Amino acid sequence: MSSRTCAIVGASGYTGRELLRLLTHHSGLAATVAMTARPDTDPAPPRLPHEPTVDRLDLDRLATVDGVFLCTPHGAAATIARHAIALGKPTVDLSADFRLSDEAVYGLTEHKRDELAAAQLVANPGCYPTSILLPLLPLLAESLIGLAAPIVADSKSGVSGAGKAASERTHFGNVHENFLAYGVGTHRHTPEIHRHAGTERIVFTPHLLPAFRGILSTIYVTPTGATTAEHAAKSMRDCLATRYAQEPFVTVYADGQPELCCVQHTNECHIAVAASGPLVVITAAIDNLGKGAAGQALQNMNLLLDLPETAGLL
Amino acid sequence: MSSRTCAIVGASGYTGRELLRLLTHHSGLAATVAMTARPDTDPAPPRLPHEPTVDRLDLDRLATVDGVFLCTPHGAAATIARHAIALGKPTVDLSADFRLSDEAVYGLTEHKRDELAAAQLVANPGCYPTSILLPLLPLLAESLIGLAAPIVADSKSGVSGAGKAASERTHFGNVHENFLAYGVGTHRHTPEIHRHAGTERIVFTPHLLPAFRGILSTIYVTPTGATTAEHAAKSMRDCLATRYAQEPFVTVYADGQPELCCVQHTNECHIAVAASGPLVVITAAIDNLGKGAAGQALQNMNLLLDLPETAGLL
Amino acid sequence: MSSRTCAIVGASGYTGRELLRLLTHHSGLAATVAMTARPDTDPAPPRLPHEPTVDRLDLDRLATVDGVFLCTPHGAAATIARHAIALGKPTVDLSADFRLSDEAVYGLTEHKRDELAAAQLVANPGCYPTSILLPLLPLLAESLIGLAAPIVADSKSGVSGAGKAASERTHFGNVHENFLAYGVGTHRHTPEIHRHAGTERIVFTPHLLPAFRGILSTIYVTPTGATTAEHAAKSMRDCLATRYAQEPFVTVYADGQPELCCVQHTNECHIAVAASGPLVVITAAIDNLGKGAAGQALQNMNLLLDLPETAGLL
Amino acid sequence: MSSRTCAIVGASGYTGRELLRLLTHHSGLAATVAMTARPDTDPAPPRLPHEPTVDRLDLDRLATVDGVFLCTPHGAAATIARHAIALGKPTVDLSADFRLSDEAVYGLTEHKRDELAAAQLVANPGCYPTSILLPLLPLLAESLIGLAAPIVADSKSGVSGAGKAASERTHFGNVHENFLAYGVGTHRHTPEIHRHAGTERIVFTPHLLPAFRGILSTIYVTPTGATTAEHAAKSMRDCLATRYAQEPFVTVYADGQPELCCVQHTNECHIAVAASGPLVVITAAIDNLGKGAAGQALQNMNLLLDLPETAGLL
Repeated sequence: MSSRTCAIVGASGYTGRELLRLLTHHSGLAATVAMTARPDTDPAPPRLPHEPTVDRLDLDRLATVDGVFLCTPHGAAATIARHAIALGKPTVDLSADFRLSDEAVYGLTEHKRDELAAAQLVANPGCYPTSILLPLLPLLAESLIGLAAPIVADSKSGVSGAGKAASERTHFGNVHENFLAYGVGTHRHTPEIHRHAGTERIVFTPHLLPAFRGILSTIYVTPTGATTAEHAAKSMRDCLATRYAQEPFVTVYADGQPELCCVQHTNECHIAVAASGPLVVITAAIDNLGKGAAGQALQNMNLLLDLPETAGLL
Repeated sequence: MSSRTCAIVGASGYTGRELLRLLTHHSGLAATVAMTARPDTDPAPPRLPHEPTVDRLDLDRLATVDGVFLCTPHGAAATIARHAIALGKPTVDLSADFRLSDEAVYGLTEHKRDELAAAQLVANPGCYPTSILLPLLPLLAESLIGLAAPIVADSKSGVSGAGKAASERTHFGNVHENFLAYGVGTHRHTPEIHRHAGTERIVFTPHLLPAFRGILSTIYVTPTGATTAEHAAKSMRDCLATRYAQEPFVTVYADGQPELCCVQHTNECHIAVAASGPLVVITAAIDNLGKGAAGQALQNMNLLLDLPETAGLL
Repeated sequence: MSSRTCAIVGASGYTGRELLRLLTHHSGLAATVAMTARPDTDPAPPRLPHEPTVDRLDLDRLATVDGVFLCTPHGAAATIARHAIALGKPTVDLSADFRLSDEAVYGLTEHKRDELAAAQLVANPGCYPTSILLPLLPLLAESLIGLAAPIVADSKSGVSGAGKAASERTHFGNVHENFLAYGVGTHRHTPEIHRHAGTERIVFTPHLLPAFRGILSTIYVTPTGATTAEHAAKSMRDCLATRYAQEPFVTVYADGQPELCCVQHTNECHIAVAASGPLVVITAAIDNLGKGAAGQALQNMNLLLDLPETAGLL
Repeated sequence: MSSRTCAIVGASGYTGRELLRLLTHHSGLAATVAMTARPDTDPAPPRLPHEPTVDRLDLDRLATVDGVFLCTPHGAAATIARHAIALGKPTVDLSADFRLSDEAVYGLTEHKRDELAAAQLVANPGCYPTSILLPLLPLLAESLIGLAAPIVADSKSGVSGAGKAASERTHFGNVHENFLAYGVGTHRHTPEIHRHAGTERIVFTPHLLPAFRGILSTIYVTPTGATTAEHAAKSMRDCLATRYAQEPFVTVYADGQPELCCVQHTNECHIAVAASGPLVVITAAIDNLGKGAAGQALQNMNLLLDLPETAGLL
């Protein structure tokens, strides 16, 4: 019944598999080609009904589909993306390869729909940046955040963000009943956040949760002008509620706090805003494999292929 | 072989049980009385060798010991504490009842030794405040932190901090593979932190980890003056390393990041300092049941009873 | 687009919520009524789009739907079921109330399709019995299992099987990093297994896993006659593979072992058969909330309402 | 204060580190040499006070200590053990290298004290066998178990049993919220169990729990003669209670069930016995790193060096 087809390159990693899973519920788009990023891997049989076999890399097969998803490791996507574009195939790259480049449209869907409609190559946002930019962009656009003091974005992610490769870092014994900050001051996502927020006044710290999926970012911002934090929190909440009122995947809480369990296995972003002393504390939760990766990638591909934006995602 | 004895009131909760466990390894202090905070509970048999039976509340028995630990719920300790003091028994109260009061010495041991030596009543610090004050106090004393912008203390705790009582909040299904902020702008520990830091310029947000024990606080501070964050981070790290060089339970990292697993089941606090953009990020890890509760309480009791400070804690 | 409607009584528990979630993906059946089992509860707003509000109990509303699911506590379902049947509404009862009764058809779907087509009241099987009966029934029917020695069914379940109520048993601190057997020799599911297996020669022991969803049963059976265990294992595997070859929700492995992660969030049962010494070891995995509860209930309701059996379940 | 010294070879794995941790609390034995099993590793600094640096392998250093622990991978221990024996150093080998050999005493302490007193080389039992043999040996010795039907030993272990090496099997994403049987009919511990139980009528199946430490074995045995299972369960419980009455590390329950949390971080084995249908179900819990490895190894070394058997273990 699907009228359009797509290829997934890097289909054996967490985000590739999540895309395969989402597409089994998509009535207008089917994954007809699934490949690893390597030319020497044995084919892996489907894990779910309606899934294709995951074959070894064969770029010629990209000519047979309508759109291309790249879920390859960072660094490996650029060449394949250019090949797909040359074949005229709209491409969503989930790696970091084009996120700081003018070659691609940055696919934070709710903020880039006009550009996405005409795009050939989409740089799908990183998981941490998605959780930070969705709440911050409307507030920065409305100048509701004072930048005399830096914005603090303290983010916590499940282990799936570290990928499927076995390492000391992902060993159960090092994750379970543990917690730590990492990449303090040096994480690759910092320049991505700065570029797309339009300001370098954001200090970002990622942490590793003893959980598999989900990101929660706790963001501390200073009100502008002489307003109280309570008043500023209300203004910011109203701004976000208005901005996202028609968005199917963004929910702004009137009260209460988002939890990972509210957004896991969804393409949603849940946002709360509260005053705390002189600051406003914004919390935003997404599924790092959903809105933070495969979900948003499918949302973008739907736009590229002129399919309903929410198809396969509700 | 133990020459001194103590009572634990509230011995069936997590902190009471942790104290019982610690005391089985203490060569100079024995728990000879263990009671619940309620007068109507059936006695519970010991869980470990050398532990006493946990009996129902009987204040007369406090006269038989050298020191008293109160692990009762907040609000229930004050009356019992005054009874123990009237009996002339040095008392460490692990509840919040005296933390904002002049009646007691605030037992952040490394910063209160002089007062503790002469104290009758010790208000044992809260777990979150311990993880925040240990790194901040030396830096504030040396004026290394600018307070034009507030300090942000983003803290994450294991579930044992919520106590042993069954509730929707502590149900496995709501904790496992979940994460959330709570008490944003309203948590009871905020005034405790403000009072003992000597400044209200600290914004504190607690979060609930899908783990049982441990707290990690990520603290964002502004350098003073015109220094770079890298330079300020070095100054702060040096300040903390010097201040705590002789402390058996505080470790300041030269590099790397503390993890919960490094401090679980210990009385230690591990601290790292790193620059991140214009700010300095301080991470501090403790065991909320160790240095954040029972461990520090024992450290304080050792001082009250003129026992070696580290006894039972190494 | 849904042409048929149903009510869910007991919609706020884990199985009720799972049914609501499944029905949001069902194109031919919609949950138009959701109620708690109590007459005095405040209405709870929907958690997902297309979900109804969960109202307090009002039996009159059952007249407005085509079918009724009962997810109430054991003991509370019988009265409501009889009310629904009197209204002529096909009813699937997920409680234990009718599993040992002749009033209802026992809804182990793959083995009861003929009876289910004509049924008014279905007793949906318990989670543990489903995981044990699906592999055993074909083998017992073919007399491939010797009963001189009892069959041993050693089952392990995630905590969701214990329900949503907060208790000492479901406290994170008692589940996480823990494991135990319970109900040894006395569990309520034992007579259910015996009745529907047609033999009392099954010894069943449930255990509580430090996980949320899924059941894995390890079943030890004696070969009949003088055959080797290797030979018997092959015969049993062949028997099961043949019996379930056309079943969309039962998979018999040629080799390897089922894992909980293979069946979580599905209506599937995965089965492996292997020789071990003189015995044959059968392992069967299901999602206790899926094939062990809500999934199988929906599969049964599809049959009662003459909808495609797999609707909402793939 | 320690009068005796020991070396740990393979000190960077889970069991080696556990030994180092235990020895920091031992008043009569100190680890003065800690080495990896490899000659080319950089020295690793101590993780706890009083621990030695973990150096690269240097067999000459074994001459400087009173006893040797081998925590090396299976296959690597035999050569080092023979070197240590040649130096006259009592050696406890925690690998599997000598468990099926007559060269060593099999160190199931409670059953081998006489031989251990005179031993030079001890093969420390595997974790699964320890949890199965401790309850079975007294019952087999008293002929309380019928062997017409095989004994079923269904065992579940935390992930630490799989060691510290990163692999697909130990990745958090494959362990967390998962469960499976492995090595069905083929596990290396089966011949060890058979040899030391003195019967091959034991069918053993190991499973991997989503937890870090602990083993619980559920063992199904047939009563002898015409007795009821209830009567047989009582006889078996009495037999075990009598046999282990004076043992400091074995507890036989009068009622209730052992849980992993009761034995984690201890050298204890907790055993319960209950009737279930025609069988008796014995559950036994140990810490796989404690009584299942490092704890029992230290218990054995205490005997070899004529130290108090419980030193460092209470």
